[in-house]
Amino acid sequence: MVNLTPEMKDALSKMKISPVATAALDGTPNVVPIGFCQLVSDDTIWIVDNFMNKTLANLKENPKLAVYVWGPEIKGCFQIKGTAEIITSGKTFEDMKMMVNEKKPGLPARSLIVMTITDVFECMPGPAAGQKLL
Amino acid sequence: MVNLTPEMKDALSKMKISPVATAALDGTPNVVPIGFCQLVSDDTIWIVDNFMNKTLANLKENPKLAVYVWGPEIKGCFQIKGTAEIITSGKTFEDMKMMVNEKKPGLPARSLIVMTITDVFECMPGPAAGQKLL
Repeated sequence: MVNLTPEMKDALSKMKISPVATAALDGTPNVVPIGFCQLVSDDTIWIVDNFMNKTLANLKENPKLAVYVWGPEIKGCFQIKGTAEIITSGKTFEDMKMMVNEKKPGLPARSLIVMTITDVFECMPGPAAGQKLL
Repeated sequence: MVNLTPEMKDALSKMKISPVATAALDGTPNVVPIGFCQLVSDDTIWIVDNFMNKTLANLKENPKLAVYVWGPEIKGCFQIKGTAEIITSGKTFEDMKMMVNEKKPGLPARSLIVMTITDVFECMPGPAAGQKLL
């Protein structure tokens, strides 16, 4: 696992909707916009499953995730890769449900994807795109 | 292959930056923001490789793509899946280079990814998310 830099953490905190990619075992990629994609420590992101379908199915058979951080309010662009653990009960799960309920009451918050960050890559268009940052 | 509906074509034409996902053969997903992601017929999207790194490497070993269409100016949200052909010479390639050069001179336009659309899925958060549309 790797720790995001303060600049990366700041950028991620400004993301309203994040493109979260997974892949099925047969190699079919999937990418969906996710609202709750929140850093909870330097190396861990909580991704909330409210209405996931293929993303959750993919993670059950292939627990790998990618998400990029970029937007109008964000300087630069980078891609975060990591591994997923799916949590559907217990204290961490209840903490997530409380957080979601406080921010947007009524969402189902069916499961919590705990993403452990393994790599970060440059994603800004240009010759350095794809370079490993962390 | 499937043909996009007029509403889907209109939505795709409004995308300024599209999240394009691929996967390596080992199942590692990759997602990057792509500026040139343009419908050229009802079932075909041209994706221009200006600074691709992992996306191009993934497509060479696993020619599958996913991209979602969503944004502030777009009604609804859907995900397009398809297969990729990589073109680096010939008339179609030269046509693409001319198009890129007209819109944004100076970009390398190193290769053309011709995406044939195979599936479209509902991607709007809610109980219908993941449903196959086409």
